[in-house]
Amino acid sequence: MSQTLLSQMNSPADLKGCDVDQLPQIAQELRDFIIEVVATKEGHLGASLGVIELTIALHYVFDTPEDLLVWDVGHQAYGHKILTGRRDVFYTNRDLNGISGFPKRDESVYDTFGVGHSSTAISAALGMAMASQLRGTDRKHIAVVGDASIASGMAFEALNHAGVSGADLLVILNDNAIGIDPAVGALKDYLTKTKSGKETGRDNIFESLNFDYSGPIDGHDLPLLLEELKRQKSLKGPRLLHVRTTKGKGLKQAEIDQVRYHAPGKFDKTTGDLTPSDTSLLPPKFQDVFGHTIVELAQQNENIIGITPAMPTGSSMKIMMDVMPDRAFDVGIAEQHAVTLAAGMATQGLVPFCNIYSTFLQRAYDQVIHDVALQKLPVVFCLDRAGLVGQDGATHHGNFDLAYLNCIPDLIIAAPMDAIELRNMMYTAQLGLELPIAIRYPRGRGRILNWQQPFQKLSIGQSRVIHAGTKIAVLSIGSIGAMIDDLISDEELDVTHVDMRFLKPLDHDMLDDIFEQHEHIITIEDGTVIGGLGSAVVDYASAKAYKNNIYKLGIPDAFIQHGPTKDLHKIAGIDSETVFNLISDLSTR
Amino acid sequence: MSQTLLSQMNSPADLKGCDVDQLPQIAQELRDFIIEVVATKEGHLGASLGVIELTIALHYVFDTPEDLLVWDVGHQAYGHKILTGRRDVFYTNRDLNGISGFPKRDESVYDTFGVGHSSTAISAALGMAMASQLRGTDRKHIAVVGDASIASGMAFEALNHAGVSGADLLVILNDNAIGIDPAVGALKDYLTKTKSGKETGRDNIFESLNFDYSGPIDGHDLPLLLEELKRQKSLKGPRLLHVRTTKGKGLKQAEIDQVRYHAPGKFDKTTGDLTPSDTSLLPPKFQDVFGHTIVELAQQNENIIGITPAMPTGSSMKIMMDVMPDRAFDVGIAEQHAVTLAAGMATQGLVPFCNIYSTFLQRAYDQVIHDVALQKLPVVFCLDRAGLVGQDGATHHGNFDLAYLNCIPDLIIAAPMDAIELRNMMYTAQLGLELPIAIRYPRGRGRILNWQQPFQKLSIGQSRVIHAGTKIAVLSIGSIGAMIDDLISDEELDVTHVDMRFLKPLDHDMLDDIFEQHEHIITIEDGTVIGGLGSAVVDYASAKAYKNNIYKLGIPDAFIQHGPTKDLHKIAGIDSETVFNLISDLSTR
Repeated sequence: MSQTLLSQMNSPADLKGCDVDQLPQIAQELRDFIIEVVATKEGHLGASLGVIELTIALHYVFDTPEDLLVWDVGHQAYGHKILTGRRDVFYTNRDLNGISGFPKRDESVYDTFGVGHSSTAISAALGMAMASQLRGTDRKHIAVVGDASIASGMAFEALNHAGVSGADLLVILNDNAIGIDPAVGALKDYLTKTKSGKETGRDNIFESLNFDYSGPIDGHDLPLLLEELKRQKSLKGPRLLHVRTTKGKGLKQAEIDQVRYHAPGKFDKTTGDLTPSDTSLLPPKFQDVFGHTIVELAQQNENIIGITPAMPTGSSMKIMMDVMPDRAFDVGIAEQHAVTLAAGMATQGLVPFCNIYSTFLQRAYDQVIHDVALQKLPVVFCLDRAGLVGQDGATHHGNFDLAYLNCIPDLIIAAPMDAIELRNMMYTAQLGLELPIAIRYPRGRGRILNWQQPFQKLSIGQSRVIHAGTKIAVLSIGSIGAMIDDLISDEELDVTHVDMRFLKPLDHDMLDDIFEQHEHIITIEDGTVIGGLGSAVVDYASAKAYKNNIYKLGIPDAFIQHGPTKDLHKIAGIDSETVFNLISDLSTR
Repeated sequence: MSQTLLSQMNSPADLKGCDVDQLPQIAQELRDFIIEVVATKEGHLGASLGVIELTIALHYVFDTPEDLLVWDVGHQAYGHKILTGRRDVFYTNRDLNGISGFPKRDESVYDTFGVGHSSTAISAALGMAMASQLRGTDRKHIAVVGDASIASGMAFEALNHAGVSGADLLVILNDNAIGIDPAVGALKDYLTKTKSGKETGRDNIFESLNFDYSGPIDGHDLPLLLEELKRQKSLKGPRLLHVRTTKGKGLKQAEIDQVRYHAPGKFDKTTGDLTPSDTSLLPPKFQDVFGHTIVELAQQNENIIGITPAMPTGSSMKIMMDVMPDRAFDVGIAEQHAVTLAAGMATQGLVPFCNIYSTFLQRAYDQVIHDVALQKLPVVFCLDRAGLVGQDGATHHGNFDLAYLNCIPDLIIAAPMDAIELRNMMYTAQLGLELPIAIRYPRGRGRILNWQQPFQKLSIGQSRVIHAGTKIAVLSIGSIGAMIDDLISDEELDVTHVDMRFLKPLDHDMLDDIFEQHEHIITIEDGTVIGGLGSAVVDYASAKAYKNNIYKLGIPDAFIQHGPTKDLHKIAGIDSETVFNLISDLSTR
C-alpha cells in the first residue's frame, strides 16, 4: 500500500505543511492504512473511517495541541492517533503494552482527555475553555461528539451550562445516525429532520440552549469542512457545528452493514469481506445465552420486559427485540433513565430485565440505590462484561461492580459460573422475587456446549460445592470458578471448591462449614480485591472470630490496562498458575 | 385556624365531591394548614405553597390513584399528602416514625414512586405508562417536574425516550425559576423567554423532542388549571404542560426570599417572620467552615475553583460565589457534568473544589472513576452531608460514600474529625497533590469554637492518636470521632483512640502498632458497615494475619429512615451509649 504522503506525517505540523490539494490523497492513504491495520489486528473500524476528512481538517485548521481537541468516546480517533505521531506504533493498537484503542492522556499530548465512556467530551472541553477564559489564554476548545452520544444526559447538562458560560467552545456534532447500534430517541428523529432542511436554523434545539448553530454540512467534503472550520476558528463563545458523516465511509461493506463493521474482527482489506470463522462447535457467548434465555422466559412470563441502553447487539438483547419488539427496548445511551424506567415498570408488576454493561452501570449507580433498592423493586439487572474485558482496557473493565453493589441494602448479587447457572439465575429472578437482583457475567464464551438444559430454581443465597477436598478451600464467584474447576480436575488437587453463586446474601452456613473444616481459605473473583467476595468473606470470618488464614485473589487496587483477557488475568494474579502455586505452597505448610 | 372544608377531605374522592367554587377555599385552607404546621415543625415550605392550586386541580381532574401521579423530588408534595389521607398525621412530618417529608410508596397508594433526588419522575412515569400501554390499560400518567430538575441529564434522557414511545404521558413543568437556589443554565434562560411570549409554540424545545407542548399558563389560576388539565386528560401521547408558579405563594416573605423559605426552620405563621435564634456562640457548621476556608485558600492560590451542582446555599459555596464570582460556579442539578467539568479544568492545572452532597455524588460515580481517578486528575471532592443526615431520611443519607469510593484506585479518601481538620485537609488538598481526593464531612455543627487556626499540612494517609490507653483501641474516621473523644474524656476510659483521618491510603504503620499493642479493636464510622473503615481494617488484619478481635460499628446494611440524627445514630448503633457498653464489656473480658 502506498503511503507517499502519510509516511511523512509525523505530527500535525507536517500536515499543516501540505498544500490543501494534497489533503484528499492523505485522506485516502489514511483510510487505506486504517483498513489495512484493522483488517488483521481487529479493533474499531467504522467510526474512524467516518471522520477521516474531519480529522484532517481539524488538525489542518486548528493549532493542536495548543488548541485543545477532545474526542468523545474515542472509537473514532484512530486517524487522530495516526496523524499525531503514532503511525509507526499503530500496529500495536489494543495490544498488551501497545497503544490504547482510545485517546489517553499519558499516551500523547494530543490526547487532551482520556475517553471511553460516552458523552464526557463537552464537559471536559468546557472545563478547559473555562480555564482559558479565567487566565485570558487565547486558544480554541473543540469537542467532537456523535449524535447518539449527545443524546445522553450528561451531554445535555454540559450544553446547558456551556450555553451560559461565554466560553470559547466549539462542539462538533458528528451526526451519522448511529452509535454502535442505530441511534434512537426523539433527538435522533429531530436531527434527521434537521438534516433534510425541513427546519430552519432559528428553530434549532441547540440555539434554544444559546449555542450558535451551523450546519448541517457534508463531513466528507474536505474543502467545505476546511472553510467552515476556518470560520469557526474565528468565532468565540459556545457554538455547534452539525456535520453529517457516514460511518464506515470508504469501505463499501462497512457503509452498508454499519453495526457489524463497528468492530468487525478480521476482514479482507481489499474486498471488506469478513474473515469466516466457524464457531458452531464452540460453547456460546454468555451474551447469546442471555439473549436466547430472556426470549425463552418471556414467552412463558408475559410480565418480562427487556431494556438495553444502546447495546442491543453487544448484549444480544436484539434477539428479544427482533422477536418481541413491543416488549424489548433500546433506550439509547441513557443508563440513568434505563434503570429508573425499569423501576417505574416494576411498580406496575412488570419484571424488567435491564441489561447494562458492568462498567456502564456506574452511570446509574444512584438510580440503583435510590429508585430501585430503596423501594425494593424487583428489577433484574443483567450486568454484561463484568470483570476484565480485554482490549478495550481500563475504561471498560467491569471490575468494580461487586464492590459498589455489595454496600447497597436489599439488593441480591449473583454471578454465574457458567451458562447453565446464568440461565437458572435468570429463571429464578423472574419467579416473583421481592427484591432487585444483579446478575453479573463476563464478556465472551463459557465452557458448556450443552447449555440449553431445563430451568432449575436456585435458592437465593445458596452456594454449591463443586469439589470436595481437605485442608484448603477455594471460594469463587462467577465465571472464574470454571478456571478453578478445570485446574482442580487437571491437576487432581485435593482442595474444596465452592461456587458461591451469590455475593449477597452470602451463604453463611456454607462458610461456617468451610471455616470449620479447612485450614486455608482462598477467595477468588474477577473483580477488585477491595470490597468484593474476598472482603465479604474476611468480614464474616472476623465477625464470627474464625482464625483461619484467608488469601484474597482478585484484581489489585489499580487500573488495569488493555490487552488479551488471558494476559490481564495473569497480571492481576487471578490466573490458574497463580492459584496453582498458592495451593501448592499452602499444601506443604 | 378554620378548616371548614379541608377537615372533610380524607381522600381525593372527597375533593371530587366538592363544587368547583369550593376549591379556592380549600386552597386557602390547605395553604394555611401547611404554613401552620411547618411554622412549628419545620420542613420544606416554599415548594408546596407554590403548587397548592396545581395539587388540587390534579386530584380534582384526574382519577388518582388509578391515574398515576409522580412528584419529582417531592419537596412540593405536602399538599398532596394532606389531600390523600394524611392530614391527621401531617404533624408527624419528618419525625422519627412519622410520615416522610417525601412521597414514599409504602406510606400511601397515592405515592406511586418514592422520590428525594431530582429528575427521576419522567423516567418512572414513563415506565408506568409503558406498562399500561403494553397491557392496554386506559389510565393517565403524570409527572410533575420543576424547571431546575428538568434541566438535569436524566430528565433529558427520559424526554428523549418518551418522545418516541407513544406512551400516554403528561409532563407538567412546574416552572418557578428556582430549585433550592435560583435555577441556572441555558434552558432556564430559554424558559424565561418562553414565559414572556417572545417565542411561539412551534419553536419549542420540547416539541423538538416530539412532545405536544402547551402553555405557559398561570399555575395559581384554578379555573384555568382545571380547564387545561381536563383538556390534557382527553389527550394521549407524550405531552408537556408548562405551568408558571411562584415558590412560596401565599406567604409574603416566602415569595420574596425564596431561598431562605425553601426550608425556613421555625417561623411565625401569621407574619412569616423567622424565629430568631442566636447561634453566635455555637461552633460553626461544617458547611460554613468549608465556605470560609475555600475563600481563604482561593485568595492565596489562584488556581482554586469552586463548583457546586445546585447547592450554593446548602454547601456554603455561595460565600465564594459572592466574593469571587468568576471562580465559583453553580452548574445546576448536574452532578455528572460537575465532576467531568472539574476533570477538564484539572487538566489545565486548575484545582477545582467540587462540592457535592455525599448522596448526590452517587449520580456522578462513573465520572469519579472514569474521568477523574483513572486519569489521576487532582480534583478535590468535598462531600457534604456525609453519614446520617436526619429528617430528610433514607433518600438523603450519605451512608455509602466510604464504601463506593474505597474500591476506586488512585483516589485519596479523607474525613475530618472536626473543623480544624477539615480546614487542614482542604489546605493540604491544594498543595499540589497528584491524585484526586475526597473529603467527606457531615451536615451541621462541629464542636470547635476557635476553628480558624493557622493551616497545617497533613501527611496523606497519616492518622493521629487522640488518646492513649491499653487493651482496647477505638479507630474512628470522621466527625464521629468527636463523640468517641468526648466519651473517653467524660468517662475517663482507658482506651486508645485513633482518628484515622484517611480511609485511603490507610495508615498501615499505625494499624501495626495498634494490633500489636491491643487485644480488642473497635472501628466506628458514620457510614455503612459494609466496605468502609471497618472492612478495610478487617481486610488489613486478615492480610497481615493479625488475630485480634475486631468489632465493627457502623450503619447496618439497611436503609435508615428519617428522624433526628441523634436518634438515628442510636438506631444504627453508633451512639456513645453503644460504644460505652461495648468498651465496658470488653474491659471485663
